[in-house]
Amino acid sequence: MPDLGDATRGRLLFGGDYNPEQWPPEVWPQDVRLMRQAGVNLATVGVFAWAALEPVPGEYDFGWLDTVLELLHGAGIGVALATPTASPPPWLGHRHPETLPQGPDGVRRHYGSRMHYCPSAPAYRAAALAVTAALAGRYAHHPALRMWHIGNEFGTVCHCGLCAERFRGWLRTRYGDLEGLNAAWGTNVWSQRYSQWPEISPPVTVQYIGNPLQDLDFQRFSSDLLLECYIAERDAVRAAGADVPVTTNFMDFYRPVDGWRWAAEEDFVSLDTYPDPNDPRAPMLGAMSKDVMRSLGGGPWLLMEQSPGAASWRPVATPKRPGLNRLWSLQALARGADGVLHFQWRASRQGLERAHGAMLPHAGPGSRVFREICDLGAELGALSDVDGLLGADVHADVAIVLDWDAWRAVELPHQPHHEFRYVDRLTEYYEPLWNANITCDFAPATGNLGRYRLVLVPNLYQVSAVAAASLAEYVSRGGTLVLGPFSGVADPDERIYTGGWPGPLREVFGVRVEEHWPLADGASLVVESEELGPFTAGTWAEWVEVDAGAGAGADAGGASVVAAVGGGAGSGSGGPLAGRPLIFRNRYGAGTAWYVGTLPSADGLGRLLARVCADAGVGPVLDGLAPGVEAVRRGPVVFLLDHDAGTVEVRHDVLPH
Amino acid sequence: MPDLGDATRGRLLFGGDYNPEQWPPEVWPQDVRLMRQAGVNLATVGVFAWAALEPVPGEYDFGWLDTVLELLHGAGIGVALATPTASPPPWLGHRHPETLPQGPDGVRRHYGSRMHYCPSAPAYRAAALAVTAALAGRYAHHPALRMWHIGNEFGTVCHCGLCAERFRGWLRTRYGDLEGLNAAWGTNVWSQRYSQWPEISPPVTVQYIGNPLQDLDFQRFSSDLLLECYIAERDAVRAAGADVPVTTNFMDFYRPVDGWRWAAEEDFVSLDTYPDPNDPRAPMLGAMSKDVMRSLGGGPWLLMEQSPGAASWRPVATPKRPGLNRLWSLQALARGADGVLHFQWRASRQGLERAHGAMLPHAGPGSRVFREICDLGAELGALSDVDGLLGADVHADVAIVLDWDAWRAVELPHQPHHEFRYVDRLTEYYEPLWNANITCDFAPATGNLGRYRLVLVPNLYQVSAVAAASLAEYVSRGGTLVLGPFSGVADPDERIYTGGWPGPLREVFGVRVEEHWPLADGASLVVESEELGPFTAGTWAEWVEVDAGAGAGADAGGASVVAAVGGGAGSGSGGPLAGRPLIFRNRYGAGTAWYVGTLPSADGLGRLLARVCADAGVGPVLDGLAPGVEAVRRGPVVFLLDHDAGTVEVRHDVLPH
Amino acid sequence: MPDLGDATRGRLLFGGDYNPEQWPPEVWPQDVRLMRQAGVNLATVGVFAWAALEPVPGEYDFGWLDTVLELLHGAGIGVALATPTASPPPWLGHRHPETLPQGPDGVRRHYGSRMHYCPSAPAYRAAALAVTAALAGRYAHHPALRMWHIGNEFGTVCHCGLCAERFRGWLRTRYGDLEGLNAAWGTNVWSQRYSQWPEISPPVTVQYIGNPLQDLDFQRFSSDLLLECYIAERDAVRAAGADVPVTTNFMDFYRPVDGWRWAAEEDFVSLDTYPDPNDPRAPMLGAMSKDVMRSLGGGPWLLMEQSPGAASWRPVATPKRPGLNRLWSLQALARGADGVLHFQWRASRQGLERAHGAMLPHAGPGSRVFREICDLGAELGALSDVDGLLGADVHADVAIVLDWDAWRAVELPHQPHHEFRYVDRLTEYYEPLWNANITCDFAPATGNLGRYRLVLVPNLYQVSAVAAASLAEYVSRGGTLVLGPFSGVADPDERIYTGGWPGPLREVFGVRVEEHWPLADGASLVVESEELGPFTAGTWAEWVEVDAGAGAGADAGGASVVAAVGGGAGSGSGGPLAGRPLIFRNRYGAGTAWYVGTLPSADGLGRLLARVCADAGVGPVLDGLAPGVEAVRRGPVVFLLDHDAGTVEVRHDVLPH
Repeated sequence: MPDLGDATRGRLLFGGDYNPEQWPPEVWPQDVRLMRQAGVNLATVGVFAWAALEPVPGEYDFGWLDTVLELLHGAGIGVALATPTASPPPWLGHRHPETLPQGPDGVRRHYGSRMHYCPSAPAYRAAALAVTAALAGRYAHHPALRMWHIGNEFGTVCHCGLCAERFRGWLRTRYGDLEGLNAAWGTNVWSQRYSQWPEISPPVTVQYIGNPLQDLDFQRFSSDLLLECYIAERDAVRAAGADVPVTTNFMDFYRPVDGWRWAAEEDFVSLDTYPDPNDPRAPMLGAMSKDVMRSLGGGPWLLMEQSPGAASWRPVATPKRPGLNRLWSLQALARGADGVLHFQWRASRQGLERAHGAMLPHAGPGSRVFREICDLGAELGALSDVDGLLGADVHADVAIVLDWDAWRAVELPHQPHHEFRYVDRLTEYYEPLWNANITCDFAPATGNLGRYRLVLVPNLYQVSAVAAASLAEYVSRGGTLVLGPFSGVADPDERIYTGGWPGPLREVFGVRVEEHWPLADGASLVVESEELGPFTAGTWAEWVEVDAGAGAGADAGGASVVAAVGGGAGSGSGGPLAGRPLIFRNRYGAGTAWYVGTLPSADGLGRLLARVCADAGVGPVLDGLAPGVEAVRRGPVVFLLDHDAGTVEVRHDVLPH
Repeated sequence: MPDLGDATRGRLLFGGDYNPEQWPPEVWPQDVRLMRQAGVNLATVGVFAWAALEPVPGEYDFGWLDTVLELLHGAGIGVALATPTASPPPWLGHRHPETLPQGPDGVRRHYGSRMHYCPSAPAYRAAALAVTAALAGRYAHHPALRMWHIGNEFGTVCHCGLCAERFRGWLRTRYGDLEGLNAAWGTNVWSQRYSQWPEISPPVTVQYIGNPLQDLDFQRFSSDLLLECYIAERDAVRAAGADVPVTTNFMDFYRPVDGWRWAAEEDFVSLDTYPDPNDPRAPMLGAMSKDVMRSLGGGPWLLMEQSPGAASWRPVATPKRPGLNRLWSLQALARGADGVLHFQWRASRQGLERAHGAMLPHAGPGSRVFREICDLGAELGALSDVDGLLGADVHADVAIVLDWDAWRAVELPHQPHHEFRYVDRLTEYYEPLWNANITCDFAPATGNLGRYRLVLVPNLYQVSAVAAASLAEYVSRGGTLVLGPFSGVADPDERIYTGGWPGPLREVFGVRVEEHWPLADGASLVVESEELGPFTAGTWAEWVEVDAGAGAGADAGGASVVAAVGGGAGSGSGGPLAGRPLIFRNRYGAGTAWYVGTLPSADGLGRLLARVCADAGVGPVLDGLAPGVEAVRRGPVVFLLDHDAGTVEVRHDVLPH
Repeated sequence: MPDLGDATRGRLLFGGDYNPEQWPPEVWPQDVRLMRQAGVNLATVGVFAWAALEPVPGEYDFGWLDTVLELLHGAGIGVALATPTASPPPWLGHRHPETLPQGPDGVRRHYGSRMHYCPSAPAYRAAALAVTAALAGRYAHHPALRMWHIGNEFGTVCHCGLCAERFRGWLRTRYGDLEGLNAAWGTNVWSQRYSQWPEISPPVTVQYIGNPLQDLDFQRFSSDLLLECYIAERDAVRAAGADVPVTTNFMDFYRPVDGWRWAAEEDFVSLDTYPDPNDPRAPMLGAMSKDVMRSLGGGPWLLMEQSPGAASWRPVATPKRPGLNRLWSLQALARGADGVLHFQWRASRQGLERAHGAMLPHAGPGSRVFREICDLGAELGALSDVDGLLGADVHADVAIVLDWDAWRAVELPHQPHHEFRYVDRLTEYYEPLWNANITCDFAPATGNLGRYRLVLVPNLYQVSAVAAASLAEYVSRGGTLVLGPFSGVADPDERIYTGGWPGPLREVFGVRVEEHWPLADGASLVVESEELGPFTAGTWAEWVEVDAGAGAGADAGGASVVAAVGGGAGSGSGGPLAGRPLIFRNRYGAGTAWYVGTLPSADGLGRLLARVCADAGVGPVLDGLAPGVEAVRRGPVVFLLDHDAGTVEVRHDVLPH
């Protein structure tokens, strides 16, 4: 299969979404001239062009696209050609109302926006494949073609009868028969037992709260159903014979689409990333999102969309300050991207995104934004000449476990704390490492963990037997593992483990959690620790017992207590948890397993992870940097990104590789 | 008719909901063994078992229930057998979509949750009565049977066409003819006059805001319609010949179901109570809820559900701290309960309540929760041996008037203050008495008030002529009555009384309220009083005139002013209300009537009620207790409940009875 | 055409809405007696009387109305007769469900409230015109008739299929053909191109966010559609031959109805105004709302509704304090009203407005509210005798531009700042002038601006070529113009101007805005200015360049910088905007144009406008008044309104006219 290298062809990619159908043809040559001026070498074309390509059903108009591709190719600019299937033309929804997605309330979501398709509707699928096949047939061998971009930001969920039918099929595959489904869904609770398949539907508006596994399975199904749409289009463009890679664009931390399953079907992964310029944590969150992409793809990836200015959907759409787009672009490079694209090339004058930033803003080429774009293009050109940077991997000694099922399940309704958000948990663990310039990967719990010195699992609410075995084996062979609270609670069928938590991982950690103890809003605990010093914790605690007899593999005494709630029992100051242990360390086989039964303050968690890293022999890329300076090594280059002053230092010949 | 004594049979009841259908049969003997270990003597069975009892329409499977009842009976454990009609199986809604309840937006609430029935739908009613009759026919004479538990937490409201038809019937009964309805509903306002019955519907989605009496009547109707469902099932189980009492479970302060009307149809009342362990006012709120139950039933009642740990529906589901379940259980006993049950016996592994606490938690019998349950079982066993406790009444000198119509009407849309909540009003008056260990009953305004030294009416927005006469007679015969603000405003048809408020009670109080004066958010008044000292008031004030000539029965001079807004008129500091009187005392016949035209601070109201109690000869159960210690006498026992430290002292031989 | 003078007939109007159909006939003579006592000379009758007038379809009952009009006329009280079409009787919606308005979610809004009509439905239109014609035919020549009051507070929006058809017709008129519509709506964005007219609908529930111009056009259409309803009824009453003026009642700052277009179709304009008595800014907001009315009508107007007490729809419905109704009534007079009416005469006992204040409150005539009403009636009678007051205009040297398209468009979804509200912008500019007792008119951008010394344009997000030319001509001829931020951004088809903003006004202001820079919540800038001193600004800033070469008419050097963000570039304290200019002054032709690229604090804007007024020769009505004292001159009278103490001083013989 082709990979991203077949698209980069030796140069870092630079450019953005280009929507020529929004402009009269006389603008196109200006566009190409300004693209060349800016150093653009890739344009994403056709993302929302279905109505322009097929203005009436079955009649294609490729003339304008032929012209555009010739113009681009003539200027040496490559093309990421999109299948335009994310936004069907009004004629489809008007003729086939069943292609419009339906909410849980039974109301169809009308056309006139975008993403308005039922992924199950045969009429949608047929029309989408037809336009895809026509496009692929015409352009598969076009010399400008560098990659296929399937759809856009997949995520539409539909609750209609056609989806219900597909959902039942998915459930039959998963559970075999109705008894299997009834057992898994626990339908004996609240008299929900199904007596026939047609009784089963997606989770729709109910009187109170619905079945949690129905909800979870529908999330799984919806991701799989969209993946099926993606695969069908991917296979159609591949069938046309192109030898360029295929991708689709992910979004930052997006629960509806299971990244691991999707990435496996892409030739490389790509990201649309929009950190908030007003958020002081944006540099860290951006780094994290980029590390996730590198990890999902297992190698170089593509920054497909970022805004050179404001993101118009944000309530307060502040633009990027001078230098910020360069800084975050280089952060992408540092963290494994082989190209930096933007949404979009020329700012739209109309439509919902008319206030969105662009490489060529409304103010025109005589603007600070366009000047910075030109500078960035030149800089990327120079970096393309650095030996060994393009295509290089990024090394990490630490992995954070990222699991879509744990994410979905821990955020189901009526969990013990309604604001326990999975991505917050991951961020809490990622942040101190980022502050310390310790590079991290993300990994599935069942991945090849043995290559990491340290594995962090901030939360693993759902854990399968296979995942538990993988983690146990990692520790037993000498690894260091840290597990956060509310983990090992449920199996993949959302069935609570009995006998104490973290369920199948109790032996590894030498503890037994008896009770989850969410804390009232605003309440906090003082945690005391000889090793770590005192710190506070909030939102969550647990009633944990050291589990001396947890099994053959555990030390005789169970885990050691590293930290406990302050205040003697009964003193009142610590409340009912006074004196109770919260953080534990356990020897398991050749390794070490830490259990953290609370959510420490940033300061406390920072101290804990510093200790864990030191013990595990994990160190920073560079020592002694000022706060706010991010250091990442990629191949021969160490990137030093100063997020306070917005300057970037790129070194590639001083430091040993 | 049987009563609760026919269920207790000499022992305080102890146990909880038991849902064996969620577990494989091999677990059942373990359950029974552990129940015995815990001292359980009652299990509530079958609440959500419809689908298990009737897996396909018309085919019953009683085998598993036979086994369970035998096992329980064999261990000496009694059974509260539930009709499973709160949650119809999916096959009912699938075959009869009209049995699914409809929202005001016209959207049906699907099965897949619970409480999803239209109380009017003949198909639901027939299926519910059929399974009830089958169950009753089989088990009415089972030796384990101690009581019938009808449905569960009635409260479903439906807006469908079938309910519209029933609603029109209810209205015909109430108003006679269309003219009567038009007159009562005031349909000359906004041109809402109905010209034919079929034009009338439940309150559904409208362009602006609907008719208030339509809203109120639909609330009344919905309560009556559900009561009809209850009665039908009650009569079906009675018809099967059992000689055990029948109940259904109420919830804490639940507006949709009119407690007085419902309690009259039950052999005893029972309560599901879930105070928030994180709420410092929970001990007081719990006491109040329990006093309401005792008052509704007019004697011993049953605590049907409480959680031994967390309540999973709460946004932050903190468990009960050690000792708290015992403390609140004994509070129930102290306040008239003859049994303490829990939801539920064994924690569910699946479904929406998997994070809810249980007597036997996920961690198993080796857990602090189960140990405390065993201790509580033992303690209740010992208390069962105290002569005169079981079945004893609780004496109170004070009653608080509780009225569902006032509650519903004062919370209708577009009242003068959107946050004027009826239960808050009651709580404000209850709390200082609870702090002072003065025991209270609750009573309807038309009840037998003569047995109380003091009657408090925190709010009576709607008042009927009969209620007004009852209250007037109470005072005239020597009683002391305190009436809070925004009272006597409307008649039962939500028609505002003219000429000043409290309408038909003006003569009793010797005042005439000209204007209601809600206060801006955050605003407060300083109230000055020679008798009570200064205090603040917020949310609400009134423009009140002393009504010298209010009628034959009043003193010549009208009421005396007890407190007024501080600041001379025109000084500006008191605003437009400066100097205006707010609290009044009036002699009426042989009694005393206080009118409180504002919402004093807790401190101010405490001082006012202390004065009123002293004047009325009302005193505490015990004097000189520390703050947070609750004292209640029941029969020979004085319960001293220390809510700060969580200890309980039970005395039954020291103090004179 | 008749005008308001044909209704006043030499006396200031005083009275209110009178709904006799809510009361038994024996109450009517009492009403009339008390009206006379209060000095009432006008009663608005019939606003919600459709069901009383036409209890069954096609059968009218005018008897009661005959009686009421005779009673009023006999007492010398004039009548504003309303067409009752704002609230159709239930029989209409029941027989013709298509007359009920439909939400964007497809749910019909039921009758049982008010305003529940589809303005497109032929059955509604026919029934409304029939009752209007019948009413007009009977009463056009009644001697009590002073004016027609069409409908009530027009504003209902409907999304049904009938409205869709009318919407398409409106669009055809606007855009000619489908290509024109596709071009204007920018349907090449997101593949929204329409291939046939029937595909087009109102903006309904969509998957993401809809087309902004579809949204805006539907707002324009909905205003026009309602105006068509108004005109049809107006023409029907005119056709009956009455020689009295016709109006309908506007609301305070109400976006759905385009005031300029509507006022042109009325004989005079009238206002329903409900400032919040708890809002310290209410006196200023009330003044502003009244100035808008005077400006819309271009002369005397009528205060049609205000509450003598509370407004029952307000979450906290605090009544007006003593004197406040008089104060605000005289403010209306001062600002051009020729009459002061109230909603309503007698407080309703039933229905949704039963807690609304009234001239005759529930407490009856022996109440402080009724006493104040009587005093006000007497005072207005005396003022009617002041020569030259009634009918006099109010002079203003300053105009604020008010534009419904700018308002609608700047508040569309996904603008750069979600809390950028048009009326807030106007208020910020109005407030310092009100504080300084400088009287303002409001004007359309295309109005006759030459008569003002100063024109303020707080925002003009959308600007047409015609409006831009009008403003440019105003300045070039010597006027002073101030333009606020986020202006000149889009054309009337919501197409963004390229090349920098304020688009076609760049030359006038000598600046070029490159980027809009909304500020994070809570963030503020320090702005420094030699002329104005330092002040802060929040919510919004811009990246502005002085535009030296903006065209023939500009000075060679472009605008002068008046104020800039503090902190040198790079110092960090001012952030990325440090040192950037924000406020500019430009000579253009014979005039001066100020551009304000931010939202200064009240203090800062006050200083800026003081400077601008001084330069433009604009001064206050009176100098040296205490804060909170409002001074307005109308004809021979200077009104001094003391909003702190609530006193009013009326002078009409001391000061020269």
